[in-house]
Amino acid sequence: MTSLRITDVRPWGGPATDLHVVDGVFVATASSPDAEVVPGGGRIALPGLVDAHAHLDKTSWGTPYRPHSAGPSLASLIDNERAHRGDLGPVRERVGALLDRHIDRGVLHVRSHVDVDPQIGLDSVTGVLAAAAERAGRVTVEVVAFPQSGLLTRAGTAELMADAIDAGAQLIGGLDPAGFDGDPIRHLDTIFGIAADKHVGLDIHLHDRGTLGAWQIERIAERTEALGVRGKVTIAHCYALSTVDDVRQGALIELLAAADIALTTTVPGTTPQLPLARLAAAGVRVGLGHDGVRDLWSPYGTGDLLDKALALAVASGYRQDDDIERTARIATEGGARVLGLPDYGLEPGCRANLLLIPAESLVEAVTQRPVDRTVIAGGTVVR
Amino acid sequence: MTSLRITDVRPWGGPATDLHVVDGVFVATASSPDAEVVPGGGRIALPGLVDAHAHLDKTSWGTPYRPHSAGPSLASLIDNERAHRGDLGPVRERVGALLDRHIDRGVLHVRSHVDVDPQIGLDSVTGVLAAAAERAGRVTVEVVAFPQSGLLTRAGTAELMADAIDAGAQLIGGLDPAGFDGDPIRHLDTIFGIAADKHVGLDIHLHDRGTLGAWQIERIAERTEALGVRGKVTIAHCYALSTVDDVRQGALIELLAAADIALTTTVPGTTPQLPLARLAAAGVRVGLGHDGVRDLWSPYGTGDLLDKALALAVASGYRQDDDIERTARIATEGGARVLGLPDYGLEPGCRANLLLIPAESLVEAVTQRPVDRTVIAGGTVVR
Ligand SMILES: [Zn+2]
Ligand SMILES: [Zn+2]
Repeated sequence: MTSLRITDVRPWGGPATDLHVVDGVFVATASSPDAEVVPGGGRIALPGLVDAHAHLDKTSWGTPYRPHSAGPSLASLIDNERAHRGDLGPVRERVGALLDRHIDRGVLHVRSHVDVDPQIGLDSVTGVLAAAAERAGRVTVEVVAFPQSGLLTRAGTAELMADAIDAGAQLIGGLDPAGFDGDPIRHLDTIFGIAADKHVGLDIHLHDRGTLGAWQIERIAERTEALGVRGKVTIAHCYALSTVDDVRQGALIELLAAADIALTTTVPGTTPQLPLARLAAAGVRVGLGHDGVRDLWSPYGTGDLLDKALALAVASGYRQDDDIERTARIATEGGARVLGLPDYGLEPGCRANLLLIPAESLVEAVTQRPVDRTVIAGGTVVR
Repeated sequence: MTSLRITDVRPWGGPATDLHVVDGVFVATASSPDAEVVPGGGRIALPGLVDAHAHLDKTSWGTPYRPHSAGPSLASLIDNERAHRGDLGPVRERVGALLDRHIDRGVLHVRSHVDVDPQIGLDSVTGVLAAAAERAGRVTVEVVAFPQSGLLTRAGTAELMADAIDAGAQLIGGLDPAGFDGDPIRHLDTIFGIAADKHVGLDIHLHDRGTLGAWQIERIAERTEALGVRGKVTIAHCYALSTVDDVRQGALIELLAAADIALTTTVPGTTPQLPLARLAAAGVRVGLGHDGVRDLWSPYGTGDLLDKALALAVASGYRQDDDIERTARIATEGGARVLGLPDYGLEPGCRANLLLIPAESLVEAVTQRPVDRTVIAGGTVVR
């Protein structure tokens, strides 16, 4: 039995307390006198940050700088990636470098979409899973089999996505069933079919804006109810929700709540943000993702999910403490609810995954994002 | 004669070279063998960052955290500030703490709007000037006498703004002549009148969006031409430019270019960004500002202008290297042109104000913003 006492920390920025850990799990009772002690020094304690939407396989983290080489269109971005991804070096090494950064910042849970297509087969899936396995106990990685290059438009991809589940992926992905793949009904029927066969959930990219996107949300909700996968479906980005009128937005949120469909945002730069308060009031689960980090799609990203929490707060026009604190909750608990993480939190019974941040308040943890953090995973200090 | 040799640096991220400084100024010829040497280690050299729109007097930097206490309306923000600014402690100390942070990050030039009103008189102006004087040679501060609480609606303010110039302020400010102060013609005539009397320039806050703001841009341009102050007027924020249609936007940009009116942006979270490429093509000068840092208006801000450059790049939807590099240029040269800084740059004859950033490329300096910087002001290492 190993014991840990984390002294003088402020959970969520609240009053100072000690946290007690036995065998990697928070316990209510004081730990034994010979417990290892981590001095908190009055720092804020948060449960591990949850990156609910990543593309680990694409990152160039840890490799030399390369200028952006794609044109502005989605097709150009995809073609450019297919042409150059082979130059980046082994998936396992790049993903490992980025996961090490995640651990360094206290990002202890990641859901990553991973490309599957006939050109690379399952190589990226196995590479990501290998890098994650090397860091077992420090970070968890959930893999979504993702048809980046097209599902209907790239023959053989659907079969590979099913194979990806057998290889260890946990979810089936999708990508703009109308706007990119060109046949929304067949796209959705295909991915919901695979997910049903394999008894797994779905996480569907939906960038389509306005009424086209809204119509697809309705189709996703129908299938979620009909196939009995309530609570197991996520829509990523979901720009449609912030690009329709308020009445339609309200109706869509009711649908999402009824089907218990979760949303993830990666804080778009040029699209209105998700209506977070309205979603929260309806009980819709929302997670925050870093999206790609320094890859062939964009040069942005630091691996620190608090940078995204700040971006979300600013882009949402927040000034009030409780609004800004909401972004920290989305970066932690929100993502945990999207991923369905068991035993998540700072309460007794939860796995002792946490970070300590030197900040006066939760708002300042978001606005200043100090990088001098202590990170504890499963009761072990990993940083 | 003091000499400095800064070895192995990459100006603007380009090829490595040595920079030579004599008596605080860059020179073309190699410095003497007994020159002090600063090893650049291949880092990127940029001329000092220029914060072209600050509110130094409002900051709570260096004081304990306080929750946001204002409501969402502009009137509530102003009333809340008037009620609580006295609690923050002396202007000189708070501004000094923030200027030290600026120097630490390589922000070596600041234009700050400073509140002037009958309640506080010129206290904030003299406080800011005192803090700046204590740091002379390391950072320059230009003060705009700013009618935050209203010009026409707060009797006595116009006279105080004129007095502020006599006390050392360099520019006359303005604030939403229609949307906030209620009488655009009288507001503009008043501030242009003071500026003409005192032979100084103007820097006018204009948040009014759409056609109301556009109409005021036209009125500002008329007065700029009529009063012969071309090149001496700045419009801050100028949200109207990104909230009118493309045709009107083009016509307004022609007016701005003809009157040589500069713009500054502080990267709004919920308003479309200025059309930077179109402004650059027309030759309109654009600077970047941090706006308030951790004050009664908002809890945001780090004092690092590269954080704002990144926000500008993301919010502008940039992915290409030259676009992202443009934001670094706006944070440096752009601001210098707005402020009319003499001897600014890395060329021979320029004052040796620069920072060294450990990044592979200018794009990475913006995306990653490493804080481990060397800062040199007037040929002296100040950080
Ligand atoms: Zn994605
Ligand atoms: Zn301002």
